[in-house]
Amino acid sequence: MKKLITFTTLCVACLLENTAFSQQALWNNSDIISPQINDDNTVTFRIQAPKASKVEIQGDFILPHKAETPDGTFNVARTAELKEGKDGIWEYTSDKLPSELYSYSFIVNGQKMNDPNNVYQVRDVASISSIFLIDNGVADNYMVQDVPHGNLSKIWYASPTLGMRQRRMTVYTPAGYDTGNKKYPVLYLLHGAGGDENSWSELGRAAQILDNLIAQGKAKPMIVVMPNGNASQQAAPGIAPNSMVKPVLMLPKMMEGSIEKAFPDVMKYVEKHYRTLKNKGGRAICGLSMGGFQSLYISARYPDKFDYVGLFSAAINKQSKGENDDVYDNLDTKLATQFKNAPKLYWIGIGKDDFLYKDNASFRKKLDEKEYPYTYMETEGGHIWRNWRTYLTTFTQKLFK
Amino acid sequence: MKKLITFTTLCVACLLENTAFSQQALWNNSDIISPQINDDNTVTFRIQAPKASKVEIQGDFILPHKAETPDGTFNVARTAELKEGKDGIWEYTSDKLPSELYSYSFIVNGQKMNDPNNVYQVRDVASISSIFLIDNGVADNYMVQDVPHGNLSKIWYASPTLGMRQRRMTVYTPAGYDTGNKKYPVLYLLHGAGGDENSWSELGRAAQILDNLIAQGKAKPMIVVMPNGNASQQAAPGIAPNSMVKPVLMLPKMMEGSIEKAFPDVMKYVEKHYRTLKNKGGRAICGLSMGGFQSLYISARYPDKFDYVGLFSAAINKQSKGENDDVYDNLDTKLATQFKNAPKLYWIGIGKDDFLYKDNASFRKKLDEKEYPYTYMETEGGHIWRNWRTYLTTFTQKLFK
Repeated sequence: MKKLITFTTLCVACLLENTAFSQQALWNNSDIISPQINDDNTVTFRIQAPKASKVEIQGDFILPHKAETPDGTFNVARTAELKEGKDGIWEYTSDKLPSELYSYSFIVNGQKMNDPNNVYQVRDVASISSIFLIDNGVADNYMVQDVPHGNLSKIWYASPTLGMRQRRMTVYTPAGYDTGNKKYPVLYLLHGAGGDENSWSELGRAAQILDNLIAQGKAKPMIVVMPNGNASQQAAPGIAPNSMVKPVLMLPKMMEGSIEKAFPDVMKYVEKHYRTLKNKGGRAICGLSMGGFQSLYISARYPDKFDYVGLFSAAINKQSKGENDDVYDNLDTKLATQFKNAPKLYWIGIGKDDFLYKDNASFRKKLDEKEYPYTYMETEGGHIWRNWRTYLTTFTQKLFK
Repeated sequence: MKKLITFTTLCVACLLENTAFSQQALWNNSDIISPQINDDNTVTFRIQAPKASKVEIQGDFILPHKAETPDGTFNVARTAELKEGKDGIWEYTSDKLPSELYSYSFIVNGQKMNDPNNVYQVRDVASISSIFLIDNGVADNYMVQDVPHGNLSKIWYASPTLGMRQRRMTVYTPAGYDTGNKKYPVLYLLHGAGGDENSWSELGRAAQILDNLIAQGKAKPMIVVMPNGNASQQAAPGIAPNSMVKPVLMLPKMMEGSIEKAFPDVMKYVEKHYRTLKNKGGRAICGLSMGGFQSLYISARYPDKFDYVGLFSAAINKQSKGENDDVYDNLDTKLATQFKNAPKLYWIGIGKDDFLYKDNASFRKKLDEKEYPYTYMETEGGHIWRNWRTYLTTFTQKLFK
């Protein structure tokens, strides 16, 4: 190791002589570990903030609790306070946490920031959060396990229907795809408003979920196609020309029919460039929120194409009027046609607290009245990724069987 | 747009009723724009920090300047101060900046943090920085332009030499690859210590550089393979099992010959699964720092394989002793063999302030004495990504011609 030590010593020397910016930021000098997942599934968070007078943590694992206010009264807090220790290092240890993927931020003297010692982050629209996973439960499927991994590709395809020479999609091919000649079924997996072709593989852990379920024999090996569902976008923010701007939730041409009409462009590319099963039994479509809405209307528009349809917290009835009203008009007639030769699985999942719960209940009532068969899953919580990962994990186990 | 407005209104309602964590973090409520690149190439940075008494910015575009200290003396500062304006929003506008990819952080009351309004970040080992690009110069090649884009894939391959069933590499296939039957030359592009298979496509902007140079006719269409060069790793932190820990600079089995010996595993996969030119004239290898060192020894070990070799700030003479000394022993003899049928291009680039400058000068002296032909580029600055992007831009234009 002598030479390695020399190399390291030289790097340190060069960093001391210069700022971190004048040489490569070779490493983060801090040896603080945060988050530290303890054996009992409590989690310890640390941040060095020697000049701070108050450090808090905010996260989806901090339950609301009563907190004293400066005037002596109590209110409901959704943060926890860290305590200052040696060298200005503040620390907080959580309760024992059930298995899940969690996200959090620190609040240092009122200023929200990510954990500087945790490089694992996710972006949701314009917000970036620090994340961690607790194992021994649902999150085992979201973690990278020692199982065969599928490949994940960022692919550019042409969408003449949208008038775009290039649009981007994420494609997961299961382990074994590149060594065999087998044909695979395809799941089209659609994101919500504010999302893009990266959302399901990043926030949704789609590659990990598929790797793990396939390795356990719980899901069939399948290709998963995650297109960009924003008709005005070529690709995720920063990936198309002039798009390195602050991401926004609502974009032009959302839920006005363009994506549904252009969907054959996606399928055409996929079925030409991948070894796919080109029949109804070999295709599934599902999505969250806006993507659930799109799955509803795409599968109704092309009733002979998809034998598996999944609506995850679907944004039912949120279409806007415009040039493509034919996509949304006469839904009852379209559903009648679709269910005449019913899909093998029409799956609906929603959280009890979801702001779209009522619209989904009305839609289910419509299906019930017509006696159209569907499978329903109701979970705790609202319009959150925690539910969508659960729905993907559940739905994919029912496909292509 | 009526229905869209309804959807947005509902979302706002649900966010007000709940915390941002109890429903999807649908958007960042802040309408602060930072960084804002102005028409004259100054850049305005903003952060809302109503409780702060001092807000600074640190970045590779902030030149060292004299700053007053509390005791009235002056020292050299590498930060600039933001000024507080309305609503606790602090602001700073930079000088006019030449075209480049820049990185920066804020320092709020002494606490370093990323720009919460900028979702564009890069990770370098365990540090994450906010980034932006200024156009009309070198960074035009680093930006996403309206040109045909190549696909970028994360591929798992077997490395029996390293005893690993799965290792990960990033593969860029140029625009047109998936629509034709042509065979392509391959550039193997290696990262440095602390890096991984993601470094060149993220910090190095390799896909953008290749897209742009190919579109301009300045580089030949080529496949670019970016393997993981850490023999103890399957993949980047967070992507292999049990690897979601703080990334470190130095790992076991670095620069001790394993990667050089296992390199044929990478080539075997690539030449089997892609339409490649399988001759010396169709292969190039280059890398930065540790990757430059590896490029030197891989090309010397397999002298009939690479007609183009690039050493970017190469970590010359940094091998450690061990089982694989044969990789590093007898370099002079190996170079004699390699240069008997000399590569078409042996390219060396380094910055004047690089801590590896002297070792590179000694190596060049060796080549000079033997009259082995090589091309040399010396730039300003040190061991930094700014230089490595320049070297990649320069080197790739000389390949396969």
